Amino acid sequence: MAPHYDPSLRSRLPLVAFLLETIFILLFVFFVKIEQHEQIDRESDSKPFISLYAEFQDIHVMVFMGFGFLATFLVRYGFSGSGFNVLLAAMAIQWAILMNGFLLPQRHHHHRREIHINMKSLIEAELCAASALVAMGAVLGKTNPVQLLLMALVEVTGFVISQWTLRTLLNADPLYSIMLLHIFGALFGVMVSWVLHRKGINAKHEKEKMDRNTGLFAMFGTLFLWMFWPSFNSALVYHSLERELKLTVIYGTYLSLAVSVVMAMSVSMLTSPKGKMNMVHIQSSALSGGVAIGVAMTAVHAPWIAMMIGFCAALLSALGFQYMKDHMLFAFECHDTCGVLNVHAIPGILGWFAHLFIWLASSESTIAVRFAVYHICVLLITVCMSLVLGTATGILLKWSFWRPQQDRKCFDDQAFWEFPNMVVHK
Amino acid sequence: MAPHYDPSLRSRLPLVAFLLETIFILLFVFFVKIEQHEQIDRESDSKPFISLYAEFQDIHVMVFMGFGFLATFLVRYGFSGSGFNVLLAAMAIQWAILMNGFLLPQRHHHHRREIHINMKSLIEAELCAASALVAMGAVLGKTNPVQLLLMALVEVTGFVISQWTLRTLLNADPLYSIMLLHIFGALFGVMVSWVLHRKGINAKHEKEKMDRNTGLFAMFGTLFLWMFWPSFNSALVYHSLERELKLTVIYGTYLSLAVSVVMAMSVSMLTSPKGKMNMVHIQSSALSGGVAIGVAMTAVHAPWIAMMIGFCAALLSALGFQYMKDHMLFAFECHDTCGVLNVHAIPGILGWFAHLFIWLASSESTIAVRFAVYHICVLLITVCMSLVLGTATGILLKWSFWRPQQDRKCFDDQAFWEFPNMVVHK
Amino acid sequence: MAPHYDPSLRSRLPLVAFLLETIFILLFVFFVKIEQHEQIDRESDSKPFISLYAEFQDIHVMVFMGFGFLATFLVRYGFSGSGFNVLLAAMAIQWAILMNGFLLPQRHHHHRREIHINMKSLIEAELCAASALVAMGAVLGKTNPVQLLLMALVEVTGFVISQWTLRTLLNADPLYSIMLLHIFGALFGVMVSWVLHRKGINAKHEKEKMDRNTGLFAMFGTLFLWMFWPSFNSALVYHSLERELKLTVIYGTYLSLAVSVVMAMSVSMLTSPKGKMNMVHIQSSALSGGVAIGVAMTAVHAPWIAMMIGFCAALLSALGFQYMKDHMLFAFECHDTCGVLNVHAIPGILGWFAHLFIWLASSESTIAVRFAVYHICVLLITVCMSLVLGTATGILLKWSFWRPQQDRKCFDDQAFWEFPNMVVHK
Repeated sequence: MAPHYDPSLRSRLPLVAFLLETIFILLFVFFVKIEQHEQIDRESDSKPFISLYAEFQDIHVMVFMGFGFLATFLVRYGFSGSGFNVLLAAMAIQWAILMNGFLLPQRHHHHRREIHINMKSLIEAELCAASALVAMGAVLGKTNPVQLLLMALVEVTGFVISQWTLRTLLNADPLYSIMLLHIFGALFGVMVSWVLHRKGINAKHEKEKMDRNTGLFAMFGTLFLWMFWPSFNSALVYHSLERELKLTVIYGTYLSLAVSVVMAMSVSMLTSPKGKMNMVHIQSSALSGGVAIGVAMTAVHAPWIAMMIGFCAALLSALGFQYMKDHMLFAFECHDTCGVLNVHAIPGILGWFAHLFIWLASSESTIAVRFAVYHICVLLITVCMSLVLGTATGILLKWSFWRPQQDRKCFDDQAFWEFPNMVVHK
Repeated sequence: MAPHYDPSLRSRLPLVAFLLETIFILLFVFFVKIEQHEQIDRESDSKPFISLYAEFQDIHVMVFMGFGFLATFLVRYGFSGSGFNVLLAAMAIQWAILMNGFLLPQRHHHHRREIHINMKSLIEAELCAASALVAMGAVLGKTNPVQLLLMALVEVTGFVISQWTLRTLLNADPLYSIMLLHIFGALFGVMVSWVLHRKGINAKHEKEKMDRNTGLFAMFGTLFLWMFWPSFNSALVYHSLERELKLTVIYGTYLSLAVSVVMAMSVSMLTSPKGKMNMVHIQSSALSGGVAIGVAMTAVHAPWIAMMIGFCAALLSALGFQYMKDHMLFAFECHDTCGVLNVHAIPGILGWFAHLFIWLASSESTIAVRFAVYHICVLLITVCMSLVLGTATGILLKWSFWRPQQDRKCFDDQAFWEFPNMVVHK
Repeated sequence: MAPHYDPSLRSRLPLVAFLLETIFILLFVFFVKIEQHEQIDRESDSKPFISLYAEFQDIHVMVFMGFGFLATFLVRYGFSGSGFNVLLAAMAIQWAILMNGFLLPQRHHHHRREIHINMKSLIEAELCAASALVAMGAVLGKTNPVQLLLMALVEVTGFVISQWTLRTLLNADPLYSIMLLHIFGALFGVMVSWVLHRKGINAKHEKEKMDRNTGLFAMFGTLFLWMFWPSFNSALVYHSLERELKLTVIYGTYLSLAVSVVMAMSVSMLTSPKGKMNMVHIQSSALSGGVAIGVAMTAVHAPWIAMMIGFCAALLSALGFQYMKDHMLFAFECHDTCGVLNVHAIPGILGWFAHLFIWLASSESTIAVRFAVYHICVLLITVCMSLVLGTATGILLKWSFWRPQQDRKCFDDQAFWEFPNMVVHK
C-alpha cells in the first residue's frame, strides 16, 4: 500500500484529520444540542454554572497547557510535544463528547438519542482526553502524529467502554470510575510502546535529554498540573449534597501534592550517587500525590491520611524512576518516554490500595469482604481492558501505511516541522 | 526638529509617558469614581460580581500574557515583544476607561460627567486595549515604543468613536459592535504598516525568524489566548436575561476553536511542499476560529454551525498565511509582521458573512433585505474609519521627531534594551 | 562536626525534609481537621466558598508560578530558582497552617486546640509562604536548599509571632497586619544576606546575569504576579459587610499596577546613560505599585490616589535599583540578589506613609496624633522583629554543618542538579 518509503505525512495527516473532522461535524449536526435550560430549570440561579465554568477552565488549562508543556522537556522535540498535544486533545474532546453522549447519557435527558452539551459533559470530555494524553506520554517521540491521533481515538473509545462496563455491570460510582483514567491511560500507553518497540531506542538515545530551557518549559507545564489538580479531582463532585466531599477532596489533594513535591525532591537527591536532584524525576514524581489521592478520594476524610498518601506515592514514584525505568527497557524491551508507569499507573494503584484499606478498616467484616471483591473486580476489568486494547492498538499502528519515522528521527522535530528561516542551535 | 540622528529615545519615551500619565491621573481626579453600590443596589447578592471578576481575570490574562507572549516569536525581539505589549496595554486601558466613560456612558449613570469604574467598564477597556494590540501586531519590530504608544492611543480613540457612531447612528447592539475590534484593529495596523513601509524589510529579513525557544514562548501565548477565548467572547453577555446566549457563546467558541486548531495543522502540512507544519502559521491560524465566531456569535445557536465557522476560518487563515503574506509584501509593499490580516481581519469578515447568512436564512425577505443593508453599513463604517485613521496615523508616525530605528535595527532588542552583563547568544 | 569539606547535601536535605514532613504529618494527625460545615452553617449557599476558591487559586498561582519564575532570571540558576521556590513554599504552607492555627485561631472555633482547614486558613498560609519567598529573594543563589528551608521556617514563625504581637498588644486589624509581609520578609532576607556575606560576591559576579531566554522566563513570572495582584490584596477582604472595600481594593490595585509598570519603564530608560531599558529593573519595579497599595489599601478610596501611589512606588523602586543596589554592596557589604529591598521594603514603607497621610488628612487632630503614634508602633515592631530575627537566622545558617556551597558555585545549578544526559550551553 505504501511501497516506496516516503517520510512525508502530507498525504496522510491532512486526509485523516479532514475526514475525522467532517465525520465529527456531521455527527454533531444530527445528535448534539446545546443544553439551554441547564441551570434555569433545575436551580433558581446561576451559581452551579459559574462554579463549574471556573473549574472547567482550570481543567482546560491542565489539559492544554499542563500536559502540553510537560511534554516539551525533550531538547529537540518541543514543537511536537506541545503541538501534537493540542492536536490530540482537541480531537479527543470532540470524540469524547460523542462517545460519552451515546454510552453514558446523563440521567435527566428525555431523548436518549440527543446529546446535550453542558459544563459537566465538557469536563467529562476533558478528563477522557487527559487519559489519552497520559497514554501519549509513553510513546512520545517515537510515533508520528497520525499514529498518535488514531491511538488517542481508540484510547478514548476504550476508556468510555471500560467505564460503561463498570457502571453497567458493577454499578460503580461515576466519580470513582472516571478517576481510573490514570491507570487505564498509562497501561494502554505502555502496551502500545511495548508493541512498537524499536531496537534503535536504547537507554542513551542521543536526543532523549533535557537542556536548561526545555527543563524550565517542562517545569512550567508541571506547575500548571500541580496547581490546578485540586480542581481536576473535585470538578465532578458538584451536587449540592456532596459539598462536604468537594471541600474534602480539594483540601486533601492540595495537602497530598504539597507533601509529594517535597518527597520527590528528597528521594531524588537521596538516591542519586552524587547527591544531586534530577529535574525530570522531580517534575514527574511531584504529581504522583495528585494521582493517588484522586483514586482514593471518596474514602479519605482526614488531612493526615491525604498527606500520607502523597508521601508514599512520591516515594514509590521517585524510586521507580531511579531504578525501574532502565530495567524495564532492558528486561522487557519497553521504553516509556515520560515514565507514565511511575507517574500514573503505580500511584493510581497505590490510591486504589489506600481506598481499599480505609474501607476495610472502617467496615465490619461481611461488608468488608464484599467490598474487597467488588473493588478488585473494578481494578481487574480496567487493567485487562487497557492491556488488551493497548496491545491491539500497537499492532494496528505498526502497519507501515502510517509511515512511522526512522529511528534516527525519533525525538526530533525536524521530521514534522518546517524550520524555513529559523535559527537551529548547532 | 531632530537634525542630527540620535537613536536614543531617552529624551522621547520618558517625556511622553510622564506627560500622558500626569494627564491621565488629572482626568481621573476630576472624572472617575469607583462604583460603590454596583451589586448591592441592583441585585441582592454578589453573584454577578464574582462571575465577572473571574471572566475579567481571563481577559486580563489574554491581554497581558496571551498577546504579550504571542509577540515573542521573533528570535531577537522577545523583550520588546512582551515588554512593549505590557506598556501599550497598560496605557491603552487607562485611556479606554476615560474614552468609554465620556463617549459610551452606561445607562444607569445619573451624572453624565462622572465615570464609574466597575467590572464591566474594565472589561470594555481591556477589549479596546486588545484592538490596539492587534494593530501593534502588524507593525511589530519596525516601530519604536514611542510610535507604538501614540499608535495605540489613536487606535483606541478611533475604535471608541467608531463604536459611538455605530451605536448612535445605527443603534447597533454594543455586544456586536465591540466584537468588530478584530477587523478595526487589523486594518488599522495594516494601513499604518503600509504607510511606514521600509525598503529594507524584504521577505527574508535576517532577524525575522523563530528559534526553538521563541517558538515555545509564542506557543505559550497562543495557548493562553486559545484557552480563554470563550471568556473573551462571552464576558459582556451578562444580563440575567441573556444567560442562554452566554452559554451558547461559550460552547460555540470552545467548539469552533477545537476545530480550527485541527484544521490549522492539517492545512499547514497540506500546503507545505515538504509536508511539514509551520509553527508560526499554526499558532496564528489556530486562533481564527475564535475571531470568526466572536463576530457571528449572536446568531449562532447550533454547535455544528460553530464548528463549521471554525473549520472555514482556519482554512482561509492558513491559506492566507501560505500564499498571501509574501504576495502582499511584493505587490502592495505592505509588510504585516504577525499576519494580523489573516488572523483577525479575514476571519472577522468571515464571521460577518456567517452572521449575515444565518440571518438571511432564518428571516422572511423584507426583514432580510433591511437587515442586510444595515449589516453592510455597519461593516463599511468600521472598515472606512479604520482605513482612514490608520493612514493618518501612519503619516503622523513617519515624522522623524519620533526617531524611528534604522532598518538594520528592526526586529532587534538591542535598539531599546540594555544587555549590560547579559550573555548574548553569539 | 563536618571536618572534611563535602559539597554533597545527600546526607542533609533528605534527612531534614523527611524529619520535618514526619513531624508535620504527626501534628496534622492530632490537631488538624477539615472544616466540614464551613459554608452550610454560616451562610445559606455556596457563594463565599466559590468566590474564595477562585481567589485562592489566583494566589496559589502567584506563589508557585509567579515567585518561582521571577527567580529564574539568573542565567545558570533557573532550575534552582523555580525548584527551590516550590520546595520552600510547599513546606512553608504546611508550617504556616499549623502556626496560624495555634497562634491566630479564627474566632468562631469552639475548641481552641483544634485547627480547622478552610479556604481562609489556606489563603493566610499562602501569604505567610509569600513572605518567606520574599526573604528568599535576597539570598537567592548564595545559599543551599537546606539553608533556605530552615530560613523559610524561621521566617514564617517570626512573621506569625509578629502578627500575633500586633493583634494582641495593639489590637491591629488582621487585614492590615498581614500586608506587612512585604516589609517583614524583605528586611529579614536582607539581614540574612548581610550576615552571610561572602567576599567572593562582588557587583560583577560572572554568573549573576540574565540572557534572552531567562529574561522571558522571568517576564512570565512577573506577569503572573502583576496580573493576579488584585486578588492577592483583596482575598482576605471577604465579609459581606466589606464588599465595597473589596471592590475598592481590586480596582485600586489594578490601577496602581497599571501606572507603576509604565513608570518603571520610563524611569529605567531615563536613568540609563544610553537611554535603554533594563529588563531586570522593569520586572521588579513594575510590581512595586502592588506592594505599596497593599499596605495602604484600607485607607485608599479614590482611583487617582491609587494611581499616585503606583506612580511614586515605581519611581522610588526604579531609582533604588539604578543607584542603590551597588552602593549597598560596597558600603554595607550587603548583597541583595533580587533587590527585595527596592521591590518590597521601600514600596511597603511608602504605602505605610501613604496610609498615615491619608488618615492624618481626613481626621481631626486628637485622633490623628493617636493614630500616628499607633501607626508608628506597628511599623517599629515589625521592622525590629524582622531585623533581629533575620540577624539571628543568618548566624544560625553560617554554621558549616549546613555545607554552604563555595563562592564559585554561587548562582549555579551544577551544585545541586544532575545534568546527566543534558546539553549544557557551552
